[in-house]
Amino acid sequence: MTQVAALQRLQKALRRLPGVGPKSAQRMAFHLLERDREGGQQIAAALHQALNCIQKCRRCQNFSESELCALCASPRRNAAQLCVVETPADLVAVEQSGAYKGMYFVLMGHLSPLDGIGPDEMGVQKLQRLLESESIDEVILATNLTAEGQATADFLGELIRDLKVPVTRLARGLPIGGELEYLDHGTVTQAFEDRKFIV
Amino acid sequence: MTQVAALQRLQKALRRLPGVGPKSAQRMAFHLLERDREGGQQIAAALHQALNCIQKCRRCQNFSESELCALCASPRRNAAQLCVVETPADLVAVEQSGAYKGMYFVLMGHLSPLDGIGPDEMGVQKLQRLLESESIDEVILATNLTAEGQATADFLGELIRDLKVPVTRLARGLPIGGELEYLDHGTVTQAFEDRKFIV
Repeated sequence: MTQVAALQRLQKALRRLPGVGPKSAQRMAFHLLERDREGGQQIAAALHQALNCIQKCRRCQNFSESELCALCASPRRNAAQLCVVETPADLVAVEQSGAYKGMYFVLMGHLSPLDGIGPDEMGVQKLQRLLESESIDEVILATNLTAEGQATADFLGELIRDLKVPVTRLARGLPIGGELEYLDHGTVTQAFEDRKFIV
Repeated sequence: MTQVAALQRLQKALRRLPGVGPKSAQRMAFHLLERDREGGQQIAAALHQALNCIQKCRRCQNFSESELCALCASPRRNAAQLCVVETPADLVAVEQSGAYKGMYFVLMGHLSPLDGIGPDEMGVQKLQRLLESESIDEVILATNLTAEGQATADFLGELIRDLKVPVTRLARGLPIGGELEYLDHGTVTQAFEDRKFIV
C-alpha cells in the first residue's frame, strides 16, 4: 500500500548486489530516484553493455570483451611465467602491486565441493592443456592463504608436478605494517619458520 | 590494460550508488558478471522501469506510479490529519510503526541553503495550497530531530500558524531500549523536561 510496485521491484533487484540488505537497497533506490536519475540510467546502461559484451578470455578465463584478453594478447608480458589466481579481483591486486610482468590464469573460484566447485568448474583441464602446449618455466600459485585457497594450491601443485613444470607459492610472513601484538598465531609462526638471514 | 573498458564503465557507474566506493563497486561488478548475470539483468530492467514510471504524487510529493499515489487515493485514511516527513524513507518508517492512519506530505529533503534546498525545492507552496483547500485538523511535523530537521519544522510551524491549523511535533525523550548511561546529554535533558505524571 505504501510502496510503489516498481519501487519494490527495484529494491528487490538491488538486494542481489553483494553486501546489500533491505535498508541499503531502499536507500539506494530512493537516492537514485530522488537525487540521481542520471546515475540510475548510467548503471542500467553499463550493466546492459557489460552483460552483453564481457565473456571469459579463452586462454586465461579472465573477463574480456574480445576472445583473447588484453593481457594474454600483449607482447610485452613474460610468457614464460604463469600466475594462477582465484578471481579477477586478485589479478587486479597483483597488477596494482607492479611486482609481476608475466601471464595469468584465473580459476574464477577455489576448490569448494560443498558449493559444487570442483576441478571442472575452475577450468583445470584448460590449465593443463595450456601448460602442455606452451613453454612455461614457472607456475606461481597465488591463491589466497585461506583454507580453500590452500587446498586449491595443494591440488594444483600435485597436478602440475606430473607435468614437470616448476611451481612456486607466494611467500608467507608478516604483512607490511604488521605488528606482532595484533597478528594471529599462525602468521607469527610462519614468519619464524620462514625467517631469512639478513647479514 | 588489465581492465576491460565495459567493466571499468560498470564499476564507475556503480559508484553512483550511495555508500559504494571503488572496492565495493569492483566486488559488485565481478559478482554480477561471474556469479549472478541474471541478477544484473534484473537490476538493469528494474532501474529502467522505475526511472520511467515513477514520478512524484501531485498531492503529497511521494514516489508514485500514478498521478495520485495509493496513500492519497485511499478512502481508508484519515484525511483530517497531515503528517509532514522529510523523505519517502521516513514515510515508510512511520507506516511500519502502524501508529498513524492519516495522510502525508513529503518534503523530499530539509531546509539546507548551502545545498540549494529552500522552501521552493521542498514544495512549501504546494503544502500551503493543500492546507488552504482541504479541511485539516492537525499537521504533525515529523521531520527528523537533527539540526536541519528542527530548522525545517520551525520554519513550517511559523508558516502554518498563519493558516490557523493546529501543528504538533513528535514527542522527544528516551528511545525504547535506551539506557541513560549511553544516551547523549541532549536526549536525557529533553526526557527530564518532558517527563509525565504516571500516577
